[in-house]
This record gives sequence, C-alpha cells and structure tokens, in this order.
Amino acid sequence: MAATDLDTLIEFLRFPSISTDSASAGHVQECADWLVDRLKRSQLDVEKHETPGHPVVVAKNAHRPDRKTVMIYGHYDVQPVDPLELWDHPPFEPHVDGDKIYARGSTDNKGQLLAHLLGVEKTLAAGDDLPVNLIFLFEGEEEIGSPNLEPFLQAKAADLACDVVAISDTGMVAPGVPTFTYGLRGIACLEVTLRGPSTDLHSGIYGGAVANPATAVAQLAASLHAATKGKVVVEGFYDRVVPLESWESEAWGKLPYGDQEMLELTGAPKLYGEQGYTSLERVWGRPTAEVNGIGAGYQGEGSKTVIPAEAMLKLSCRLVPDQEPMEIMEQVEKHLRAHCPEGITLEIEMGHHGKPYKVDPHNHFGKAAQRALQSTFGKEPALIREGGSIPIVQSFKDVLAADTLLLGLALPDCRAHAPNENFSLTNFEAGIQLNQQLLKEIAAG
Amino acid sequence: MAATDLDTLIEFLRFPSISTDSASAGHVQECADWLVDRLKRSQLDVEKHETPGHPVVVAKNAHRPDRKTVMIYGHYDVQPVDPLELWDHPPFEPHVDGDKIYARGSTDNKGQLLAHLLGVEKTLAAGDDLPVNLIFLFEGEEEIGSPNLEPFLQAKAADLACDVVAISDTGMVAPGVPTFTYGLRGIACLEVTLRGPSTDLHSGIYGGAVANPATAVAQLAASLHAATKGKVVVEGFYDRVVPLESWESEAWGKLPYGDQEMLELTGAPKLYGEQGYTSLERVWGRPTAEVNGIGAGYQGEGSKTVIPAEAMLKLSCRLVPDQEPMEIMEQVEKHLRAHCPEGITLEIEMGHHGKPYKVDPHNHFGKAAQRALQSTFGKEPALIREGGSIPIVQSFKDVLAADTLLLGLALPDCRAHAPNENFSLTNFEAGIQLNQQLLKEIAAG
Repeated sequence: MAATDLDTLIEFLRFPSISTDSASAGHVQECADWLVDRLKRSQLDVEKHETPGHPVVVAKNAHRPDRKTVMIYGHYDVQPVDPLELWDHPPFEPHVDGDKIYARGSTDNKGQLLAHLLGVEKTLAAGDDLPVNLIFLFEGEEEIGSPNLEPFLQAKAADLACDVVAISDTGMVAPGVPTFTYGLRGIACLEVTLRGPSTDLHSGIYGGAVANPATAVAQLAASLHAATKGKVVVEGFYDRVVPLESWESEAWGKLPYGDQEMLELTGAPKLYGEQGYTSLERVWGRPTAEVNGIGAGYQGEGSKTVIPAEAMLKLSCRLVPDQEPMEIMEQVEKHLRAHCPEGITLEIEMGHHGKPYKVDPHNHFGKAAQRALQSTFGKEPALIREGGSIPIVQSFKDVLAADTLLLGLALPDCRAHAPNENFSLTNFEAGIQLNQQLLKEIAAG
Repeated sequence: MAATDLDTLIEFLRFPSISTDSASAGHVQECADWLVDRLKRSQLDVEKHETPGHPVVVAKNAHRPDRKTVMIYGHYDVQPVDPLELWDHPPFEPHVDGDKIYARGSTDNKGQLLAHLLGVEKTLAAGDDLPVNLIFLFEGEEEIGSPNLEPFLQAKAADLACDVVAISDTGMVAPGVPTFTYGLRGIACLEVTLRGPSTDLHSGIYGGAVANPATAVAQLAASLHAATKGKVVVEGFYDRVVPLESWESEAWGKLPYGDQEMLELTGAPKLYGEQGYTSLERVWGRPTAEVNGIGAGYQGEGSKTVIPAEAMLKLSCRLVPDQEPMEIMEQVEKHLRAHCPEGITLEIEMGHHGKPYKVDPHNHFGKAAQRALQSTFGKEPALIREGGSIPIVQSFKDVLAADTLLLGLALPDCRAHAPNENFSLTNFEAGIQLNQQLLKEIAAG
C-alpha cells in the first residue's frame, strides 16, 4: 500500500468524532471539515450541510444522463471509547501492528469509508473519468441512529436520486472471504429511569419498608426473558418474525465461521442463546432484547449501605423481518409498566430505532456487487445476513427507492464498539480496489 | 447552647473522614488527631492507637476500684458523600439553619460522639470529678464494618474492661421522645463480579449468541426475592429468625411513628415490604436482602449498543436474632452460584458483617439509662429496636462481656448516609446533659 494512504487513514482516525457525546461536537465538526477538504482535492463538487445535529457531507462528480447513478454512503462519527483503561493504546492515537491498525473508528466506519474515497481519488488522479455518476454521502450520526439523515434525504431527494447505494460497513465472514450481506437486523432502543424514595436512604434504617430502585431495576430487566435461555417474553415480540428459509440455514452452515469462531472471538466461557438455533442463526436471523446499561446505588470502592433514590436501564432490541420498531417499543414499554414493582415510578424514553432490512441478492446490482467482490478477492463471495443495524439502509429504500449493496470489509476480530477496535490494512487496500471494480461492474451491468 | 459548643462541632465536622475511600485516609488521621488534642484539654489520659486501618482513640480518667467502669463508644469516620450534586450545601462545610446543622457525619456519628465528650469536659471543667471510671473509645472504621476494632478489643481487653458500654448512634422515634434501643439488626455484605465475554462486544454483531453480563446481573439480583413483595427466597434464610414477641408489636403499634411517618420520611410513592408486617416490624424485626449497588455497560449520556464484559453487584442483608452472618453469606453465595446463568462466571467476595443484637431492657444498666433519658427529656422513654447495624455492640458482648446501652439522639429526618445529613442542635445540647445524667445514674444504680 502507498505510505500516503496509510498516513491519510491515520489523519482521519485522529479525530475523536464521538457523536453521542455532546462535549465532542467540535471534533465531529472538524472531522467533517477534513473530509470536505479531502474531497475537494479530487475536483468533486462538495457541500457540507448543517443539520440540527452533526453535518452531512455530500460530494458529486459531473453527472451525465447516460450513466447509472451510484451513491456511496459512509459515516465519519464513532462510538464512545469507554472503558478507556482496556485499550492497549489511546483510541485516537492510531497504532499499527503488523496488518492491523488500532483506533476507535478504524473499522467502523472511517477505514472503510476512506477506502472508497481513495478508490475514487485514484481513478480520477490517473486521468480517468468515473464510469458512473457518483454521489458520496457521509454522515456524522450513524452511531446515534442517524436522526437527521432521513429528513435530509427527504429534503434533498431530487439531488440525491440514484439507482443504487453501496455501503462498506458490514463484515467479512473470514479473512480473504469476500462477503455480500443481504440482510440486517433492525433496532429499537429504550431508556428507563426508576424512582423510589425521594432521596437516598440508609438501608438499615429503612430497608424492608420501601421498594429499592436498585432491586427493582434488576427485577424489571430480568422480567424481559424467560428462564429458557435468551427467549424474550414480551407479549407479541415474535408475532411478526419471519422464520429463516432452509437455503439460508444450509448456506450459513457451510461458512468458515460458526459456533467455534463465535466462542473464540467473544472470549465467552460458553455460548448462550435461544434454543434450537446455531450462533449464526441467533445473531443474523433472530431478535434479541439486551441490557446495554444498568446502574443504581454505590459502584465505587468499598461498600455503602444505601437504598438509592433512582436506577437506570438502557435497553436495545435487535429486530428481524418483519418486526416493526415502533410496535416493539410499545410492546416493551407495556411489558415494563406491567412488571414495575409497587412503590416505584417509571419514566420510559423511546430511543433510536430502525427497521430490519432484507434484499434479494440475485437482482441486477446484487450480481454486479458479487462480480466486483470476486474480481477483487479472487473468490466467490459468501451470502450472509448481519446482526448489526444500519437503519439508514431502510431510509434509502423508503425515500430514494434504492436498494443497498453491502460490501463489508470488517473482520470478525475487528472489535467494533469495543476497546482495541482495529482494521486490516490488507482490507483497506482491497477496499480501494473494490471501489474501482464496483463502479466498473455497475456501469457494465 | 454555648456558642463555643457549636463552633467545636463545626470544627469536628469539617474533616472529610470517609473511611471507605483510601484517598481520604489522611483526613481520617487528622480527625483522630483533633480528637486527641481535644481530650487532652480535659486532662484525660489519651492514647491514639494505630491499626492496620484507621486509628482508635482511647481516653480515660484516673480509675478507682470503688466506682463502676463505663465505656462510651463513638466513631469519627463518615460515609461517602455521593451523589454530591444532591447536597444543598457542601457536605464538609457545616451549614446551620434553624435547629439543624447540615453536614456529613453530623448525626452519624460526630454530633452524638461530641455531645458525650463535651458532657465529660463540662463536668470536669466545673471542678467535679466524674462519678464513674470512664473509658472513651472512638474508632475510625465503623462505616466499613470496624474490621480492626475487635482485634484491638482482644489485644487490650484488660485495659478496656468495663461494666457497661454506652453508645449514642441510634435514633429517637420522634423529636422530644427519649428512646432506648434494645435491639439492632446485623449485617452481611457481599460483592459480586460477573464476567462473560473477554471484552465488550457489539450487541448487533454478537447479541443473541452469548450471555450478556448486564442482563445476567439483573437476573441474579432478581433471583433473591419472590414475586411476593420483599420476601427473600434464599434457602435457609429465615430458618433462625426469632418471631417478634407480642409485647413488641403492641408497644411499637403505640409509638408516634409508623407507616405514615415512614411514607413521609422516605418520600416513596408507596410503602413496600414483606406481607403481614407493619413498617416498623419490617425494619426493626425482619431481615432483608438489598441491592446497594448494581452496574454494567454504558451509563453515560446517549446510547451505546454494547454487551459489556463485566457487571457488578453489591448486596447487603440485614439480619435479626438469631441469624448468623457467616451462615447467611454462605447461603447467599450458594444461591447466587446456583442461579448464575450459563456463560457467566462469578467472583463473590464476602464483605463486612456483624451479628444482630438484642438485650433485656429491664436489667440494672437498662433501668439507669432509662432514668437518665427520663430526667434529660422529661418523658418516659420509648423502647424500640433499630434496623441499622452496629456490629461492634456484639464485639463488646463477646470480648468484654459487657452489655451496651443505646441512647440515640438521631431524629427520623436526619438523612444519615444520604445527601443533606443533619443533626438537631436541641439534641446536641440534650446529649451533653444526657452524658452527665447517665454517668450519675449508673454510679447511683
């Protein structure tokens, strides 16, 4: 790889563009400005659009009516970094070790976004025209559920009209195995505040006479699942779930990635999940209700015999076709209110949400994507779904009537959202080529 | 009250002597030194004894074989102050408003300790001899379970031999109602760490295939109680519980303190507890298992779709006669291990613990204490138990074979262990007189 490509990646990764943290808003803005400057070097027509949150950066070449229009989407915002003490190197000081670069956002999504940007930059720098009408659309709010992107798409629908969208923000089943993702789970997040006594109480003086919010938050969270592992007991939760098709289970069973790899990658002492499914079926094809955060009382050193006045609970449900996020949030809220212990009041806030997504991998653009993957990696691509959520994919379908091609470059051990997130430099380089192949194949198709 | 008494109290309250916080160790030491200096002014024989933790301060008058020996115990350490933002004034900058002084430690236990010290100081300053052989024993580790006091008592048993112990570290049922406490709940604390995956995981990519420690900690905490309110379902938990005697329920039912006051003082939307008992019976005569701290995952602003690698749980059980703390901790540990979800490993640390305590209020010293209360407050004292734990009371019984007189000056709204802890200045002054009456009545008895 050209040393300058790596330098460019390192520059991009240095911005602590944490979208959920209001204290980082300035850094998100600086990161957007860096993208604008970079895109301008390729003589693209670039605009930074402010939103009520973080900006959207849009760049285009000169469009011609005789070419297909391809939108390439990416996000330059990143997840928070805590627990910071578990990082081997500071998350915003990129560290290269062998084929890996370690930094928050390296895989999710700056490394993959930049591969596309550099692919286009190199094509143009070589004096070639692009074979398609290109729209780069880079947002800064993916990690908080893209609250301002759908309104932006609606407002600019004519400007952003395209035949297909391509995104590299998903995974490869194994190093060197090109992977085409035809489905994603949706998401529905809720945040719950429990309140009991009006102030923290001494657990000796009052313990036994009032409901304890710290105990109640545990009871409430525990009420979401049955004693049978991982099964959600919220009424109606599975009503719209479409069962897996037999070809899917069969194809996934043959992948070089399964229970053993799941165990190794997670480092869990044992796999655990809904009975009757393999790990891949559980994460790609079945919904969940997860506790992402729970907190009450004294969490510091030593002990404090307190009944806390409040407790908090952050929940997210991963959804599969045809579950509806709004309906799921209403079902969960109803469940929580029905299971709230006496003596406790609940405040429930609906959080970010996105529909599950599934496309036919055998249509025109799907085939072009698979050819691009095959010529870049020299192997037939695996056809998979993914457990993560890219709600914006559904928005592209709803607003722009465009399907999305998911050509992911994330390896299973990339540690997205976790300490020591990393990106394969081999895949970074392959991503640059993939961009060039993809635009050619779409133009040729 | 003499202005200087209040000034002295304010001086004493300024030390942030938080025993559980290792960063505060220097302040605990300074607070002990302040006590030593103060006691020396009365020509008492004072010694500061270092321990593996915080020091014990012992002071004596010149003992004579023809007098009863009375030990007065107190503690100069305090609870942590978080959540700091809920204090109306800084916890270590004492603030006087009407009859109340607001500061951490004001009621628990510096204000009450100081009343005894000033009582003795005033008797001696007036040129009178004390009517008893006095031992002041002030420790700095009560809020962390007095780990070094019992070894200290054992090492110095001959020096500390006494006929009876007196402590003001309990409550009055209402302002102006003198209160003699003949029973205390014991305590048994456990801290649990749950571990699942070896690192934080993306809840999309892995959610459904591994046990989530944040969900598991909720399930584990919830497993301690039955669906029936407040009832603990740990096997064997109630086996040794002595039922309340009928005179106790009858006497407590007549106190000017009950369900309505409990509701007002806690500010809870509703009372909640074991069925078949009044609030006073629940907190004074029945055991509990409380969550004092629970934490996992992301608790900051916004959302983070994470499966955390770890979760923590701090538990305390309040115990009544004849429950045994060690046995209860073993039962709880066994319960937790039996209820731990697959895919999660548990680390369980036994924390501080103390036996429940109950004495006959009608013995010689009990009657002297009640007379002292009657003459100080001009009313017949209420006979109660308390829900809190003073494990050292059992140690005095075990090591020194001495009963303990609990003559508390804490009002129900004192907010011990919570933000805006306060002490009644009326009770501070009464405490000074009570000390003088008590020593006289014991000598006379």
